[in-house]
Amino acid sequence: MEYRIEKDTMGEVKVPSDKYWGAQTERSRNNFKIGEPANMPKEIIYAFAYLKKAAALTNFELGVLAKEKADVIAKVCDEILDGKHDDQFPLVIWQTGSGTQSNMNMNEVIANRAHVLLGGKLTDNEKKLSPNDDVNKSQSSNDTFPTAMHIAAYKLTYETTLPGVQKLRDTLKQKSNDFKDVVKTGRTHFMDATPLTLGQEFSGYVQQLDNGIDLLKTSLQKVSEIALGGTAVGTGLNTPKGYAEAVAEKIEKLTGLPFVTAPNKFEALAAHDAMVGLSSAFRRLAVSLMKIGNDIRMLSSGPRCGIGEIFIPENEPGSSIMPGKVNPTQVEALTMVAAQVMGNDVTVGIAGSNGQFELNVFKPVMAANVLQSARLLADACVSFNDNCAAGIDPNKPVIEGYLENSLMLVTALNRHIGYNKAAEIAKKAYRENLTLKQAATDLGYVSEEDFDNWVDPKKMIGEG
Amino acid sequence: MEYRIEKDTMGEVKVPSDKYWGAQTERSRNNFKIGEPANMPKEIIYAFAYLKKAAALTNFELGVLAKEKADVIAKVCDEILDGKHDDQFPLVIWQTGSGTQSNMNMNEVIANRAHVLLGGKLTDNEKKLSPNDDVNKSQSSNDTFPTAMHIAAYKLTYETTLPGVQKLRDTLKQKSNDFKDVVKTGRTHFMDATPLTLGQEFSGYVQQLDNGIDLLKTSLQKVSEIALGGTAVGTGLNTPKGYAEAVAEKIEKLTGLPFVTAPNKFEALAAHDAMVGLSSAFRRLAVSLMKIGNDIRMLSSGPRCGIGEIFIPENEPGSSIMPGKVNPTQVEALTMVAAQVMGNDVTVGIAGSNGQFELNVFKPVMAANVLQSARLLADACVSFNDNCAAGIDPNKPVIEGYLENSLMLVTALNRHIGYNKAAEIAKKAYRENLTLKQAATDLGYVSEEDFDNWVDPKKMIGEG
Amino acid sequence: MEYRIEKDTMGEVKVPSDKYWGAQTERSRNNFKIGEPANMPKEIIYAFAYLKKAAALTNFELGVLAKEKADVIAKVCDEILDGKHDDQFPLVIWQTGSGTQSNMNMNEVIANRAHVLLGGKLTDNEKKLSPNDDVNKSQSSNDTFPTAMHIAAYKLTYETTLPGVQKLRDTLKQKSNDFKDVVKTGRTHFMDATPLTLGQEFSGYVQQLDNGIDLLKTSLQKVSEIALGGTAVGTGLNTPKGYAEAVAEKIEKLTGLPFVTAPNKFEALAAHDAMVGLSSAFRRLAVSLMKIGNDIRMLSSGPRCGIGEIFIPENEPGSSIMPGKVNPTQVEALTMVAAQVMGNDVTVGIAGSNGQFELNVFKPVMAANVLQSARLLADACVSFNDNCAAGIDPNKPVIEGYLENSLMLVTALNRHIGYNKAAEIAKKAYRENLTLKQAATDLGYVSEEDFDNWVDPKKMIGEG
Amino acid sequence: MEYRIEKDTMGEVKVPSDKYWGAQTERSRNNFKIGEPANMPKEIIYAFAYLKKAAALTNFELGVLAKEKADVIAKVCDEILDGKHDDQFPLVIWQTGSGTQSNMNMNEVIANRAHVLLGGKLTDNEKKLSPNDDVNKSQSSNDTFPTAMHIAAYKLTYETTLPGVQKLRDTLKQKSNDFKDVVKTGRTHFMDATPLTLGQEFSGYVQQLDNGIDLLKTSLQKVSEIALGGTAVGTGLNTPKGYAEAVAEKIEKLTGLPFVTAPNKFEALAAHDAMVGLSSAFRRLAVSLMKIGNDIRMLSSGPRCGIGEIFIPENEPGSSIMPGKVNPTQVEALTMVAAQVMGNDVTVGIAGSNGQFELNVFKPVMAANVLQSARLLADACVSFNDNCAAGIDPNKPVIEGYLENSLMLVTALNRHIGYNKAAEIAKKAYRENLTLKQAATDLGYVSEEDFDNWVDPKKMIGEG
Repeated sequence: MEYRIEKDTMGEVKVPSDKYWGAQTERSRNNFKIGEPANMPKEIIYAFAYLKKAAALTNFELGVLAKEKADVIAKVCDEILDGKHDDQFPLVIWQTGSGTQSNMNMNEVIANRAHVLLGGKLTDNEKKLSPNDDVNKSQSSNDTFPTAMHIAAYKLTYETTLPGVQKLRDTLKQKSNDFKDVVKTGRTHFMDATPLTLGQEFSGYVQQLDNGIDLLKTSLQKVSEIALGGTAVGTGLNTPKGYAEAVAEKIEKLTGLPFVTAPNKFEALAAHDAMVGLSSAFRRLAVSLMKIGNDIRMLSSGPRCGIGEIFIPENEPGSSIMPGKVNPTQVEALTMVAAQVMGNDVTVGIAGSNGQFELNVFKPVMAANVLQSARLLADACVSFNDNCAAGIDPNKPVIEGYLENSLMLVTALNRHIGYNKAAEIAKKAYRENLTLKQAATDLGYVSEEDFDNWVDPKKMIGEG
Repeated sequence: MEYRIEKDTMGEVKVPSDKYWGAQTERSRNNFKIGEPANMPKEIIYAFAYLKKAAALTNFELGVLAKEKADVIAKVCDEILDGKHDDQFPLVIWQTGSGTQSNMNMNEVIANRAHVLLGGKLTDNEKKLSPNDDVNKSQSSNDTFPTAMHIAAYKLTYETTLPGVQKLRDTLKQKSNDFKDVVKTGRTHFMDATPLTLGQEFSGYVQQLDNGIDLLKTSLQKVSEIALGGTAVGTGLNTPKGYAEAVAEKIEKLTGLPFVTAPNKFEALAAHDAMVGLSSAFRRLAVSLMKIGNDIRMLSSGPRCGIGEIFIPENEPGSSIMPGKVNPTQVEALTMVAAQVMGNDVTVGIAGSNGQFELNVFKPVMAANVLQSARLLADACVSFNDNCAAGIDPNKPVIEGYLENSLMLVTALNRHIGYNKAAEIAKKAYRENLTLKQAATDLGYVSEEDFDNWVDPKKMIGEG
Repeated sequence: MEYRIEKDTMGEVKVPSDKYWGAQTERSRNNFKIGEPANMPKEIIYAFAYLKKAAALTNFELGVLAKEKADVIAKVCDEILDGKHDDQFPLVIWQTGSGTQSNMNMNEVIANRAHVLLGGKLTDNEKKLSPNDDVNKSQSSNDTFPTAMHIAAYKLTYETTLPGVQKLRDTLKQKSNDFKDVVKTGRTHFMDATPLTLGQEFSGYVQQLDNGIDLLKTSLQKVSEIALGGTAVGTGLNTPKGYAEAVAEKIEKLTGLPFVTAPNKFEALAAHDAMVGLSSAFRRLAVSLMKIGNDIRMLSSGPRCGIGEIFIPENEPGSSIMPGKVNPTQVEALTMVAAQVMGNDVTVGIAGSNGQFELNVFKPVMAANVLQSARLLADACVSFNDNCAAGIDPNKPVIEGYLENSLMLVTALNRHIGYNKAAEIAKKAYRENLTLKQAATDLGYVSEEDFDNWVDPKKMIGEG
Repeated sequence: MEYRIEKDTMGEVKVPSDKYWGAQTERSRNNFKIGEPANMPKEIIYAFAYLKKAAALTNFELGVLAKEKADVIAKVCDEILDGKHDDQFPLVIWQTGSGTQSNMNMNEVIANRAHVLLGGKLTDNEKKLSPNDDVNKSQSSNDTFPTAMHIAAYKLTYETTLPGVQKLRDTLKQKSNDFKDVVKTGRTHFMDATPLTLGQEFSGYVQQLDNGIDLLKTSLQKVSEIALGGTAVGTGLNTPKGYAEAVAEKIEKLTGLPFVTAPNKFEALAAHDAMVGLSSAFRRLAVSLMKIGNDIRMLSSGPRCGIGEIFIPENEPGSSIMPGKVNPTQVEALTMVAAQVMGNDVTVGIAGSNGQFELNVFKPVMAANVLQSARLLADACVSFNDNCAAGIDPNKPVIEGYLENSLMLVTALNRHIGYNKAAEIAKKAYRENLTLKQAATDLGYVSEEDFDNWVDPKKMIGEG
């Protein structure tokens, strides 16, 4: 491979000659060979591009950066956002915990690309822009990385996770309506219980997702607060007056998302509780989806030796050895994602708790886990929705068969003959394998007519 | 021990003759010898008392329970709330996952105590009230236990946790004000950084707690929604018309807290995401407190070989072997609590994810962990506040000594001579053990006068 | 309440006059009002009694403590171990993270009780024994608390947890043998699969517990290494020559358990990875028990609308509203315990990761969580065993009904006609609601005779 | 893109014409668009190649597969192991939880590539080998995926993780020896304590890693047990006699690693406790590394306002805004990895607990998390070792300065004048800012000569 020489305050470094990055990026590449290469989330890279453009334009407007420099920085940022430089960001999550090296990667790529755009060569000794003094002007890694983290997390959650979950929620709502007249046996403790409709059962899932969506939206509020303007320790050293507010406004405009400057920059650098909070919101959804997924899995179990009250779509052969087998594979992907999100949440909490003094240095691991959770939840909800939930149908003969046989219809008698006598009926029916009616009349507690009148599943499902 | 015979639908059971509980409580006591005895949280017991009173009065008002019965049930509930029957609730957390046995414990104690209040004897064969048909009227364990769980969690959080955290927050706010002129060295990556004030440092803690309190309040909203009226599976079977709304209003009145009936009873029985959400809010506070605690621990370290920038109160001898040692013991209790809350949150999440069909049967473990977190956070914040935070003072000579020596003051020169030359100065000073000023003038980059003018910690702390 | 005055190096403190504890215990009681009072686990108290006795006797043998003092210390320790002083240990888990205050509680109680045994009065100004110089001789909290933690954890695990799990394992093994001829439908992905015997299904549970027991035993090895002799920072300052080995031997004799001195005392004070390891072993068992419990829950579901392949004992009425309902309540307690242990493990890991320099100051929270997990697993396994597992019986008609209908018996045809044709048969049978045999012969792929010969569940369960 | 038509039991599918995979792979690709594409770990792919080769050869030896077929399968597997077909495995972690689709991906690629090697064309209607009947012969996804999981986890852990951790352990051992005479102040509760040597401090880290390595090795034992031979539900249906043992032996030979057939195949399919156990071993190491990393971070803090007792290498500029700053970046990567591993462990535990009946369908997520933990720990230990630990040096002037001033040297006086008087001396010295000696002689408790003789840090560090 061909190299050129780049310099930073520690000396010279050989850098691949076809890359825009500089000395510090290359040092990080060499010093942190941990895990998959280049796995700093792309969302972070793009968020940095918004941020650098906003900073450059704000620096110009506040009189601390020349127009030519601001313009060319903005231009490079646009190129990055167009996906033209994806191969210029080779760094990994497992680097310095402030993300300094990814910030410098961005600064170096912008400075060098700008130099080329302005007619220079990568091998020139002097570049027209300095990564630190120009591109990073009025900034520090300590306020840019958390800002990029918030931009990335907000954007992905708002544009992808929320719509993904909402899509599944809407399908389940539709199913809840469709199934509103399908009376079925309820199950509590996994044991037969009093009846409800399949629509009511699904309405519980809808409520779970509605609540989860609510919390997600609430959690985004704190994520909309950005650290930019705090620089090294939160004081805003080396920023022009009014910078924090102005740059937040610029970011709001560029992204179309409601970012504001954080009310306290010390907190915004030293703690990432907003990310912890967002992760919790994902965890809550994971908990809900685990429950919903398990229910669908169990309701569709069979075809002949399970519960079998619903049909789910057959998407692929289920077994490499058992011919004709069909499995709830979408549920499995969904619940695996739920398990991942629940563990990610622990990582985020531990990382968030380990800040010290003016800085939390677990930023990249927090960003990576939050973004993974956001992405996986979104994709899994959509996949589960399109390939499973949308195709759910009731298996009415099975549902009706269970319902007729269920001993728990006896509960309707409580109001008429009391709990104890009702229990006696149920026990007799169970022991002697009778119908409830038979047992009730044998015991002489209820007449046939009263039984038929009182014990009617359709009357046991509330007004809903 | 003396016994009397009690009966339920499964037959006869011997019960201690001086206790009000009945057959089902005794069965549970015998069948679940797991962990500490009688550890079902007292908050749950009292919450049940509110609930049973509210249910009885509502049942009377809706015409399904006689006045005499409703009144005597209410009277027993008042006795329970007065703490007169604390020894009547011998059951443990590790029972049936619906909490049915604690619901029946309450039903039995109320029915039997009512019988006595109405002139009967515990040994009477027939009791004036039935635990199931009267005390439990219009109810099921499946809607009462989650309701009790929500009442207990809301009440404890609102009345104890929130004020406890707020108290600490207010002290830290006061300290932040008191320390607003104490300029000190910042530390990022645990390494010397640019200066800030001790007040600014503390303002970050205040912001963390403010945000945590916000989330706690938000999380309580879903906890204010109660399941009562859903009965066995969420349909409200065996409840009179209007019951759910009426009983929620009654509970609101009795507790003085803003409880409302849950919008979807199926969700309220089968999922406890509201508890998961509340637990997350506690976890967020735990994360914040771990950070704050660690900072205080490190800032007060020494007295001669640590950071030593602040003094904390000396509350007790610190060591059984090292004479004169003083330790940050309140921080240690606080951070141990944080670790507990973070683990409890995982338990709550796992439990919450394991609901099946119409019921989640991990209710008691969820209640126990949420209530423990609420209590521990409250107590630990108050203890840390009273015995540590309130007595924090700056160690000004130490703070000033560090500040004078810090090489990171060089950052102020960036705007004047650029990052690279500034770095050269810092490196020279470090290598040759010089003052920054000496290094700067030796290198000829800055005049003495400019240095004194530009490098002034007091000008480096922002406008705050 | 009546008080007397006690003193420590910080001054005078009022102590309840009927208690043996002294100034430092009282300070801790006042300074740490966090959570339930007096909740430092009793196992820790008793472990301390063994340790203090062993230390006193060793100190005497090594010539640094007078015989009279050693003897009276030993005598008080025996009283403590006899449960005579349980009310003398009022401190909580949430105290100093080194457990110094519980160590001093023990030192004070022993010194004062010894003083009384030797004829003195609690109100005497001078006591015959010093808590620090005599009872704590050759010790520090920093090595005694971890030692007590290891003694308590080893003893409880060895004497209670292991036998408890083993008991359940043995019952499941017996069931596995009993059920070795009960051929049933297998289920993978919760969907019908090829057959196995109920005995084989249970043999998987046995293997899980066998492996869990193995790991538990392995994990105890590191717990058998004790820190005593390390004193303040691991160097063994102020201990006589040979002390560490001698005192470990003494503890081994007193407890009858194979304790040895830790090979590296610095690790033994600053890290508690042995406790982290033990907690992981509990977590592994919890994971296994969650799986086993869920299977039992699902296999016994019904009675008419579930899987229903096994019967479990009916121990109590299952519902306060649904008469005659029976629930898998023991499974629910067991799986709630599993959820608790999984969360406790996270607490222990976080606590274990937070040691600093020469000490980990999360000792009490680690001890409390490990001991709770040990206790809960033991009790829950015994309760589940006695009240559920021991009474499991197969529901043969249900099992046989499923087996006859299962489409996955078709897998036996793979070897004869290939996967694709076999799949065709299964799909036809499913779609047209036929028996496999009908579908197979209709398609002309297999003769009736071959079918009967090849598709025989009894031949599909291996040699086992 | 160009396509060809492939078929499976559900019908026809269009597949990219240049790919070897077939219908089922393509279905999965379309149905599971969740997260990053093609992220099924490469280690799993290669493990499958070993397994398929071993199965083919064993099938041939046991007389159920033709030599030509076995040979060509083996040949394709060798090509895969040579990395020639890395682009043929496009599936993701978030697929069916049994990993069936990845098993079929492998079966299809092998069958189609074999067909081509045998002279056929991908577009041929009939292929010379069947993915199910030939390549998957005597196998099921349910036993192959867990086998691949174990092969991959064992291999990566044994060949990469263990050597990586060992390398760091050896460096720390060397440092411990190098620093054996560097007497320094101990710190407990982050407060000054009695002295020890820097070598002793590091010896604690060595012991932690030694213990962690021990547990890792122990944990691998259960991972060496493979499920192959269990097929669909553990019974070994459709396998020839002796197959399980023979194929395990073959895998042992091919990999050079000590794999054996699992003693109970029902457990091996339905539970993955061996993976849970391995994950716990990684978690233990993560806990240790968090502690070690934090210590190094704090010991090297400064350069002028921290603890500063050691130097660590300067690898890159530390700050984008603070010139000349150097940070403990390798520690940060290491501790971020620790946080990740701790969260992964929770995911693995939750996934492991969710098996049902004859199958755990959280296999891919378990594999992915365990493998990520194995890889990250290995890489992070090596990176931290090479770029940080190997270059650690003591800062002797700082160390000596602290040591001289430490008040905790007073502990040496306990044996001579008792704890209380020693405490008086320390407190006086602290309050009046005196040396210990001054305070001791001022109080008249010790003569100058005795003081010098008794209070000597070099005598306070034990015999080690």
